[in-house]
Amino acid sequence: MENPHGSQQPGSDEPEAVAASIFDQATAPPWQRQITLRAMLVSMLLGTLFTLIVMKLNLTTGIIPSLNVSAGLLGFFFIKIWTKLLDKTGTLRQPFTRQENTVIQTCVVATSGIALSGGFGSYLFGMSEVIARQSSEPEGAHDIKNPRIGWIIAFLFVVSFIGLFSVVPLRKIMIVDFKLTYPSGTATAHLINSFHTPEGAKLARKQVQQLGKFFSFSFLWGFFQWFFTGGNNCGFENFPTFGLKAYANMFYFDFSATYVGVGMICPYIINVSVMIGGILSWGLMWPLISNRKGDWYSADLKDNDLHGLQGYKVFIAIAMILGDGLYNFFKVISRTTAGLVYHLKEKDTREGLPVANHSNSATLSPSYDEQRRVQNFLKDQIPTWLAVVGYVTIACVSIITLPYIFSQLKWYYILLLYVFAPILAFCNAYGCGLTDWSLASTYGKLAIFIIGAWAGGSNGVLAGLAACGVMMNIVSTASDLMQDFKTGYLTMASPRSMFVSQVIGTAMGCVISPCVFWLFYNAFHDVGVPGSTYPAPFALVYRNMARLGVDGFSSLPKNCLTLCYVFFAAAILINFIRDFAGRERARFIPLPMAMAIPFYVGPYFAIDMCVGSFILYVWERLDKTRADEFGAAVASGLICGDALWTLPSSVLAIAGIQPPMCMKFLSRTANARVDKLLQT
Amino acid sequence: MENPHGSQQPGSDEPEAVAASIFDQATAPPWQRQITLRAMLVSMLLGTLFTLIVMKLNLTTGIIPSLNVSAGLLGFFFIKIWTKLLDKTGTLRQPFTRQENTVIQTCVVATSGIALSGGFGSYLFGMSEVIARQSSEPEGAHDIKNPRIGWIIAFLFVVSFIGLFSVVPLRKIMIVDFKLTYPSGTATAHLINSFHTPEGAKLARKQVQQLGKFFSFSFLWGFFQWFFTGGNNCGFENFPTFGLKAYANMFYFDFSATYVGVGMICPYIINVSVMIGGILSWGLMWPLISNRKGDWYSADLKDNDLHGLQGYKVFIAIAMILGDGLYNFFKVISRTTAGLVYHLKEKDTREGLPVANHSNSATLSPSYDEQRRVQNFLKDQIPTWLAVVGYVTIACVSIITLPYIFSQLKWYYILLLYVFAPILAFCNAYGCGLTDWSLASTYGKLAIFIIGAWAGGSNGVLAGLAACGVMMNIVSTASDLMQDFKTGYLTMASPRSMFVSQVIGTAMGCVISPCVFWLFYNAFHDVGVPGSTYPAPFALVYRNMARLGVDGFSSLPKNCLTLCYVFFAAAILINFIRDFAGRERARFIPLPMAMAIPFYVGPYFAIDMCVGSFILYVWERLDKTRADEFGAAVASGLICGDALWTLPSSVLAIAGIQPPMCMKFLSRTANARVDKLLQT
Repeated sequence: MENPHGSQQPGSDEPEAVAASIFDQATAPPWQRQITLRAMLVSMLLGTLFTLIVMKLNLTTGIIPSLNVSAGLLGFFFIKIWTKLLDKTGTLRQPFTRQENTVIQTCVVATSGIALSGGFGSYLFGMSEVIARQSSEPEGAHDIKNPRIGWIIAFLFVVSFIGLFSVVPLRKIMIVDFKLTYPSGTATAHLINSFHTPEGAKLARKQVQQLGKFFSFSFLWGFFQWFFTGGNNCGFENFPTFGLKAYANMFYFDFSATYVGVGMICPYIINVSVMIGGILSWGLMWPLISNRKGDWYSADLKDNDLHGLQGYKVFIAIAMILGDGLYNFFKVISRTTAGLVYHLKEKDTREGLPVANHSNSATLSPSYDEQRRVQNFLKDQIPTWLAVVGYVTIACVSIITLPYIFSQLKWYYILLLYVFAPILAFCNAYGCGLTDWSLASTYGKLAIFIIGAWAGGSNGVLAGLAACGVMMNIVSTASDLMQDFKTGYLTMASPRSMFVSQVIGTAMGCVISPCVFWLFYNAFHDVGVPGSTYPAPFALVYRNMARLGVDGFSSLPKNCLTLCYVFFAAAILINFIRDFAGRERARFIPLPMAMAIPFYVGPYFAIDMCVGSFILYVWERLDKTRADEFGAAVASGLICGDALWTLPSSVLAIAGIQPPMCMKFLSRTANARVDKLLQT
Repeated sequence: MENPHGSQQPGSDEPEAVAASIFDQATAPPWQRQITLRAMLVSMLLGTLFTLIVMKLNLTTGIIPSLNVSAGLLGFFFIKIWTKLLDKTGTLRQPFTRQENTVIQTCVVATSGIALSGGFGSYLFGMSEVIARQSSEPEGAHDIKNPRIGWIIAFLFVVSFIGLFSVVPLRKIMIVDFKLTYPSGTATAHLINSFHTPEGAKLARKQVQQLGKFFSFSFLWGFFQWFFTGGNNCGFENFPTFGLKAYANMFYFDFSATYVGVGMICPYIINVSVMIGGILSWGLMWPLISNRKGDWYSADLKDNDLHGLQGYKVFIAIAMILGDGLYNFFKVISRTTAGLVYHLKEKDTREGLPVANHSNSATLSPSYDEQRRVQNFLKDQIPTWLAVVGYVTIACVSIITLPYIFSQLKWYYILLLYVFAPILAFCNAYGCGLTDWSLASTYGKLAIFIIGAWAGGSNGVLAGLAACGVMMNIVSTASDLMQDFKTGYLTMASPRSMFVSQVIGTAMGCVISPCVFWLFYNAFHDVGVPGSTYPAPFALVYRNMARLGVDGFSSLPKNCLTLCYVFFAAAILINFIRDFAGRERARFIPLPMAMAIPFYVGPYFAIDMCVGSFILYVWERLDKTRADEFGAAVASGLICGDALWTLPSSVLAIAGIQPPMCMKFLSRTANARVDKLLQT
């Protein structure tokens, strides 16, 4: 679920030093005027759209690509239309500035960030009965908490704002003093800057056109597909593209515009990793293990029983994810410490860390651009005392409120979390600035194990999952918002307007995300069931991690633990090789985290993503310039259109309107039987 | 089945007068060296491919687009590769000339022409039992003759060569004296000329690349589709794109690359006409008539009984085709007479008829190019006495042999046909030179009615159909080959080499076409059955025309005759309006002939063709130059690739290898029943 993509977004090759001087004439408006009503309305609209997207991805495979660029692009598009219309009627009072654009982008990221850190596809949904039943644990009322829109909103409001306050004091250190890179934030800033230069706006308009075209296509495609899904295993989603045998092993192209788009946005190595993982697991290991049925595991178990084949799938995936997470944790921690020591020593010189000096190592004396940016960034301060007071107040509220929501979560667990959280938030924000890789979920897993083991017994699982939520929210907000501060720094937006926009965005997210989840949960009755359209794979993974923390390894099927050790070690080893192979060769070594996802979900979405990769590759070969300019726009269009279709499709489902037809795939022999039936 | 397309082929806008001077240095090789072994081998290969295409189209809908351009293009491609390879190994003895290219094109057209004039989708197959049974006539051994490869080859050899000899004496009159346009032939000549100029070859190579790309795509698409057709009504061919209700009325997109390609080649007005015809018949008339079931026709008839709804479909289509044919017959005859009078009067002046002066009205004194062409064209004469002797000899052989093949066809019928045939051949060749519209099938229908009525009784149907074959072969050869002579004239190929190449091509066609038909007939056991993949719609139409000639109108269902009169009159009226509306407005008036085809076949292929039109339209809007340059190549690629796939697919069918899966489309309720069945 971490998000390493962002450094390959368009616009990042533009020389950074040019941007501020171009905009010299137009000074930034005061911070209050950067947050406009129209910006907030557009943010809400886009926030809802992106929440839909993230939620859908959460519940299907859990792979979430970076949506920063789409947010910037669509924000620009809506406000531009708005201002143009007003300009024509002569009622435009305030022109559209890049600061306003940044504010929108920040607000949208804050809103849709909640969809991810809210754990609807992981810890939060992992508490539900549906997941607990798959986990094959002894049934107990203590151990489950089914999602209800009320407590989810309350929970999110209590835990989501605290991250904001922990970030504020770090802002100047990370951005002005340490000059960290934050690749995604930088790329988005370049994009926004390029929109607001005259030529940039032209390109942006074309990009928006492309986005709009593929948006409509993807939406209509989703609509068209719907008609053929009147029954189980019907429609294009179940198209046995490579034959029925391959389909049985989850190898098929499911015609999902979303994952083709995701494949176009993700770097090639991610797609290749996912594919390799899929082939390794579903092509090789699972068939081999299922040959041992009756020996390694009991033959009369149900398909999704964790004591059977399903156990191997889930726990080997967990082992690999944990191995990768642990390696990266220690890597980032060690780099953080080293970097910190270095920065504190050399605070006055302008040279950054070797790993962080990507774009600003050359400027020993600050350039004109940079002076202006620093000046602007420090103009509207947010006092540190306010941050501290805010943090402590919200922590107190949390400590008092949360035990009412989760009776298993004792107040002293929460206190402990809030004492250590700022340190981890700092770590994550710093690590993300260096590597663009947020480890929020890893810190969350840490909380699961620690609090789960501490609580123990029948309370352990739920306490662990709830603790994970508390931790993840702080830590992920810290890194996400620091990315936005970097964007704001480069687009000369006021930190104060950024902060306010983040607060508003977070508040919107706390309402929108539960509502969207609630929509999915009620519209599609099999959310969380393996093999359905929305299996929410990570919910089970998180729950089982919590159980592992509480129960130990005793309940695993035969040889599963051995295999887990092997894959845990392999994940660490592969990461190690990646780091020491050198940049050039590391490009060809797969990422264990990406490899682990299809272990449980199945490789079909990897095929979609590879199709996306392939399209982009061919396009780049044919016309590199256009592919670079429009690739992200096309991909965003595909993702957004498909996501928007889920809105009417779930409305249809709730209204009880079923698709009229079923496109079915039968073997020849089964078809003969069916034909006989239909003739009678 | 007439072919009005050709004037919109690429290359026709190149100024004609330039061509010969460019090639001034390279004099044409002597005629014997224009017919090379390699050219004949390539012709055989392409002839087979195009026969496959034409046969497939014959048996599916009967709409055959012009393949002259593809023949020229692919001929160039193969010989170019050949000569390049030989050139590299240093063993090339003879360079590739445009004359050789013309010889190949002529030979391929002659070969694949037999697939059309052989009547495998019309009169010849109309004699078979399968069609007779649908025609709901009293069964009698006299009235049918099932296809057997032996007698078909013999029949074709006897009737196909005589057309060649009838054309020879007309050659100089039509081309040199009358300077008729022959739009298709001229377009092909321009294409071949452009290939053999240095820049032209570059464009040709790119065109061939595009053709190759879409050829492979189309072939692979056919291959992919095959896997999902393991049963009746399975696969993409039966995709209810617009819902099951529309599918029941034959409105659906059947994903046929062939007809998308055909739609790209045919002028927009043809596609629109077909679509209008489809909507009028299957969207409006048939549903309305079927509401009268029990009143207008007996309710307990089978679906394909001609006394029921099927009768309306077939006979209204026939009425419309006959109306259109008759109108055009009289139009062309009157123009022919008028033109003839005009030409004979003004033989010495260079100005042509108003309708024929498209490209050569300005040159009152012959240009250098033209002098050279005429000189070349008249150099290698074919003596008229040879033509007369040839014609009489073959006629005698026919008169003796044919009654052995068809006992119903008396020798004096054949004698009569051969007396009048040269006159009609002349008419058709002349009319085609003026309008690019061959009326071969109309002359064939004339023969059906005359000979059918003359023979009468139980012999009439078969005698009529056989007479149709004799007539069509002469008449269509005459116009096809005159087109080729025009091509040869413009590319400075020797008339003698053209004639020899036509003889060889015809001989190949007489063997290849029956073999290809035999392949289809044996591989797909439901050829000729309505609703199957190969319904061969025109076979039934022809048989019923013959019956109509013999039996009269008595057997038609209620009100059918009235409707026939209405549509017969409408066809004439529409044609009349088209002719008097002026060129500009005529472009928007549909063609009755094209409208009639979906009456019987169903509008699904019209949807394919409109998709092709739409693609071309969008492409032209986006990039007119490229669309003009590559449109025909892409379309040819789509058609050829799909056609080539029929070869392996029929081999698979003969070998008894069935597709492994069935992609089935069920209504939601049917699906529920099926799911219940499959669970048990």
